[in-house]
Amino acid sequence: MCGDGVTAHVYRQIARREPRTPSPAVPADDRPSWQRPPAGRVIDLTHVLNPLFPHWPGDRPFEMRPVSRCSEDDFHANELMLHEHSGTHVDAPAHVRAGALTVDAIAPADLVAPLVVIDIADRAAVDPDTMLATADILAWEAAHGPLPARCLVAMNSGWHRRVAAPGKFLNIDADGYMRTPGFDPAAAAFLAEQRDVVAIASDTLSVDAGLATDFGAHLAALGSGLYAVEALAHLDAVPAAGALVIVGAPRHQGGSGGPARVLAFV
Amino acid sequence: MCGDGVTAHVYRQIARREPRTPSPAVPADDRPSWQRPPAGRVIDLTHVLNPLFPHWPGDRPFEMRPVSRCSEDDFHANELMLHEHSGTHVDAPAHVRAGALTVDAIAPADLVAPLVVIDIADRAAVDPDTMLATADILAWEAAHGPLPARCLVAMNSGWHRRVAAPGKFLNIDADGYMRTPGFDPAAAAFLAEQRDVVAIASDTLSVDAGLATDFGAHLAALGSGLYAVEALAHLDAVPAAGALVIVGAPRHQGGSGGPARVLAFV
Repeated sequence: MCGDGVTAHVYRQIARREPRTPSPAVPADDRPSWQRPPAGRVIDLTHVLNPLFPHWPGDRPFEMRPVSRCSEDDFHANELMLHEHSGTHVDAPAHVRAGALTVDAIAPADLVAPLVVIDIADRAAVDPDTMLATADILAWEAAHGPLPARCLVAMNSGWHRRVAAPGKFLNIDADGYMRTPGFDPAAAAFLAEQRDVVAIASDTLSVDAGLATDFGAHLAALGSGLYAVEALAHLDAVPAAGALVIVGAPRHQGGSGGPARVLAFV
Repeated sequence: MCGDGVTAHVYRQIARREPRTPSPAVPADDRPSWQRPPAGRVIDLTHVLNPLFPHWPGDRPFEMRPVSRCSEDDFHANELMLHEHSGTHVDAPAHVRAGALTVDAIAPADLVAPLVVIDIADRAAVDPDTMLATADILAWEAAHGPLPARCLVAMNSGWHRRVAAPGKFLNIDADGYMRTPGFDPAAAAFLAEQRDVVAIASDTLSVDAGLATDFGAHLAALGSGLYAVEALAHLDAVPAAGALVIVGAPRHQGGSGGPARVLAFV
């Protein structure tokens, strides 16, 4: 049933080079707006997930096992075994509070949000324990105006660039502590209580700094009903202000979170 | 670390009733367009996935196993075990052809598409074996104009309404055959070859009809480099023309497909 024929490389080249027959000619300007491709570009904020992707110490790594392969009478498919909080993923409020919203129950409208990116990468490059502070939020507002309603606030610590470098993403020191940036719990509380935010997000594995022992950023944000997104990719490719983010959270019933496809429109 | 305090019901009511402090007042009309919530509504085309969700005979059902619970020193999290083609999900071209695009490699821009809904529900209500034919596509074009560029063409057979009724979604007859609608392979080939389509989609478990033995719709679409989306929900809530769909495909490396969060903007 399945055919090989060309290598993946060649296949992809063919797919890119040979546009399919377009629809019958319609003058571009006459097309209703919805018939035009969306304005701007789509930026993928999602890391590729594989068994080597850095994961929280003690959690099982992502695993994929083929259960059928392309043949005369079958298709290729795999079974997946994973911890919910793997790869680029969502934390639902139920991650920290029994009875709170599970990942399937996050309002769909809250999965679409203006994207606010607060860059602390220069500081994080010299101090891996640095935290995104309320002052950083106020500095963003001084530059770009008040945080937009129902926005998602993402920390760009530059950590997304470290995923491919073994050991650099978790950055565990000789004493076994993760040395990674995160949100100051006071800043997370400020966003949850003083601004109209749907989610906080980080390009590290956790919205809390690696040295955090009380997980105060998680508790402040998720405990207030916000969700979180962790391990975002490509935050250097989106502007500090002006993008829209779509968080393709998974929808398994009762989940505390899970891998998400996160796309930005710029 | 986790707190209970209020029941889920009350918690959600509180979350809904108490708006967070808005950003400092900005006259609505002065806000740049990106600071306004996206126009229109977000419709969730994704079913909730749980162990009872109908699955292909022989595939493992979705499974979720708690590995930690809210306590003084831990958060709630689960491990997930699933077949890739579970719930509302994507089929990548690699599902049918070795070496073709895997789910992580689908171009992000192709995950955002004008949504075309072709309704054959009246016919399917009296004939579960009916197929979406090329004539149905041409009838859609006669009513709404040419298929837009880079669109996703979804079959609404009414089957999405059957998910909650045990046995009705797979609709297996006394002889063991699934009796479910699908794309006529010739229609899938027409879309792949004669129109500019990124994906075909169905509200059934398969883009092929249940009686199909050659899986011709899969082969015509995926074999041409299109992807597919199966088991879409809520297709009655989106218009035949005019919506935009975002397919939050998973991004595990080398995957043949997987559960996706699918959202429509109407």
